[in-house]
Amino acid sequence: MQAEIITIGDELLIGQTIDTNSAYLGQQLGSIGISIARKTAVSDKESAILSAVAESFSRVDLVIMTGGLGPTKDDITKKTLCQYYQCGYRRDEAVLAHLEALFASRGRLMLETNQVQADLPALCETLHNAVGTAPGMWFDQAGKVLVSMPGVPGEVYHLTEERVIPKLKVKFPLPTVEHRTLVTLQKAESLLSRQLETFEASLPPHLSLAYLPSFNMVKLRLSQVQQGDAVASEGDIDLYFDRLQQAIPEDVFCLGDIDPALYLSNYLIKNQISFTTAESCTGGWVAHRLMQAPGISAVYPGSMVAYANEIKSAELGVDPEIIATHGAVSEACALAMASGVRRKFGVDLAIATTGVAGPGGGTKEKPVGFVYIAVSTQNGELCKSFRLFGNREQIIQRTSNAALWMVKQVLKMPTDSAA
Amino acid sequence: MQAEIITIGDELLIGQTIDTNSAYLGQQLGSIGISIARKTAVSDKESAILSAVAESFSRVDLVIMTGGLGPTKDDITKKTLCQYYQCGYRRDEAVLAHLEALFASRGRLMLETNQVQADLPALCETLHNAVGTAPGMWFDQAGKVLVSMPGVPGEVYHLTEERVIPKLKVKFPLPTVEHRTLVTLQKAESLLSRQLETFEASLPPHLSLAYLPSFNMVKLRLSQVQQGDAVASEGDIDLYFDRLQQAIPEDVFCLGDIDPALYLSNYLIKNQISFTTAESCTGGWVAHRLMQAPGISAVYPGSMVAYANEIKSAELGVDPEIIATHGAVSEACALAMASGVRRKFGVDLAIATTGVAGPGGGTKEKPVGFVYIAVSTQNGELCKSFRLFGNREQIIQRTSNAALWMVKQVLKMPTDSAA
Repeated sequence: MQAEIITIGDELLIGQTIDTNSAYLGQQLGSIGISIARKTAVSDKESAILSAVAESFSRVDLVIMTGGLGPTKDDITKKTLCQYYQCGYRRDEAVLAHLEALFASRGRLMLETNQVQADLPALCETLHNAVGTAPGMWFDQAGKVLVSMPGVPGEVYHLTEERVIPKLKVKFPLPTVEHRTLVTLQKAESLLSRQLETFEASLPPHLSLAYLPSFNMVKLRLSQVQQGDAVASEGDIDLYFDRLQQAIPEDVFCLGDIDPALYLSNYLIKNQISFTTAESCTGGWVAHRLMQAPGISAVYPGSMVAYANEIKSAELGVDPEIIATHGAVSEACALAMASGVRRKFGVDLAIATTGVAGPGGGTKEKPVGFVYIAVSTQNGELCKSFRLFGNREQIIQRTSNAALWMVKQVLKMPTDSAA
Repeated sequence: MQAEIITIGDELLIGQTIDTNSAYLGQQLGSIGISIARKTAVSDKESAILSAVAESFSRVDLVIMTGGLGPTKDDITKKTLCQYYQCGYRRDEAVLAHLEALFASRGRLMLETNQVQADLPALCETLHNAVGTAPGMWFDQAGKVLVSMPGVPGEVYHLTEERVIPKLKVKFPLPTVEHRTLVTLQKAESLLSRQLETFEASLPPHLSLAYLPSFNMVKLRLSQVQQGDAVASEGDIDLYFDRLQQAIPEDVFCLGDIDPALYLSNYLIKNQISFTTAESCTGGWVAHRLMQAPGISAVYPGSMVAYANEIKSAELGVDPEIIATHGAVSEACALAMASGVRRKFGVDLAIATTGVAGPGGGTKEKPVGFVYIAVSTQNGELCKSFRLFGNREQIIQRTSNAALWMVKQVLKMPTDSAA
């Protein structure tokens, strides 16, 4: 089954806002077997919206629309839909009660412009928006469904998952779609795909593999699509997901569609392994990624950014002789930083980074993107050099992914800790 | 003048890639007086591309297209454009030479699939891509212009700024557009717009004001659009830009379309003011934003994340009595952290943050989003509490913006340092 997305708002066309909603919607609808045939962004103009809707419905039976539902006069989606469906407004008392409660809880007075949000096109079914003021709307006329949601990302997520997807599953005969995802770090997509050629060729037609790459990380998503009640191949996806892991045993960081930093943080929390970092070229980014998990304070006391050589020596105890002899970007310095900060914070594990993130500072021997990462524990240490590509931001992100990879090696962390 | 954007690629429709190119193109074209009437995303299918192009050209005379120019068989934009324009291929020897040089410089062998990138539709003019392998293409037929570029963001930026915009200015009679931008921090868009009502009402028709909000920051952009050679109102925009600043004298952080953290970093570098941070709830994000400026190492030796109370005491010298009496989220603790880290790193200025970033840890007295920020210098110190909204990531970002604001107050930093 195919659908189209229409996003409404001048801010999308002038480039003031980057549209993240439609990528989210593409993923969510894809996960229930609805593929997006086209996305259209139009301005807050009645004629533009009307023609986009008519064109989409000439091609597909499902249109998902976001934006233009605010209380100000710029937002004309509701009025336009009344015109499209040739209907008037009805006041939705449940929406009004929700608005009154919302304003009361925020200690604010409800204005007449806000009350208007309870007036909806007579032909739509209300999709209750528990996290915002503008409800979603569901139109089902002549076999064609139009869903309209506000443009605020948090409200799109809520309405899509709680209201829209359950109704779509009832309304349309959708295939059963299942996914299994794993995360690889370090190896490039092109090398992985060469290693997986035989595996991919072996996949039956109802299974497919997608590569989702970003900065030294590639997520691999195996998808199974089954029409109707076919259960003959049940179990297939898990069988092939096992084979996928066996085809690249060295490359899998963790199982699941998860940020690998969060996976590692949860593993450290669960196993009560305390950690810290001493970062030079990454400027605190490794620590920042690892401290996002709820409960992290149990294993993370704090960390250091040691940019200046004097700080590396004074705070981390790096022998100035090491820096004089090998330079700050060296294996010896990275190892000394890691063991120094581990003792300083009294933790089980420490990560240190030192390198050239650019844009300046590169030399022939140590060009931009040349980085040492060291991991120190009571039981041993590991230091590796990397040659990473991209701009400053990308080199920092790649370094942080490489650091996660090294911690996995040192801890012999399993790929599925099911925390 | 109006244009449409067509983005090509299955990865956009399934939500694997968030389209940032079209927001960039909307901004760039807007800056030369071309507004985007519609954006359409279609899959890598010939029929989908052909119908999107025909539909766009039925509405406008300029179509900007990105994506589908890679060397693999999925990428069919070139073939489709040959069909649309009813022409064959020509080999572009300059492109071939560029490809050979590029591969040689990377020490890689050029394959036949790469050579194909030098074959272009006979009717297009080549737009030399100095930063990638796929050239841009410019078609000008029957008064209608189509520009095709690869989808890699860095290549889109290069081709747009170096090739496309100069050619558009020659081809079409465009208005002269000028912008003046300033950055405000702290005050909400709705309050600013109320304060600027009189100013906005006073604007002549060729001037307009745009609000570009994000997390406690609002950029205000004043734009002047002039058709043809009209120079009567020259100077107007600067006159009104001055009035804009005078209307909100307390709210302007800096002038220019610049990241305020970068503005502050450049100011610190230029004035040789060394700094550090001691961060609890922001986990290093304030330091991370401030250390992005080239040359920052001259004033930034490093910094601390002090998450655990023991680290606040052991490393920053916060009296445990303060934490026992007032809690770690307190004015006294924030001030002690700031002065402690300033002395530890021997710098001129230190920023400390301590608060509840959430999602857990909130109490009735100190709810999620309650944050203290302290700034310490040799000449004095400042500490303020904030009640910030949003999820964890947003609270951290808002805290960092509030910290920039406080540093400006303490340093009495000018809004236009013209570094």
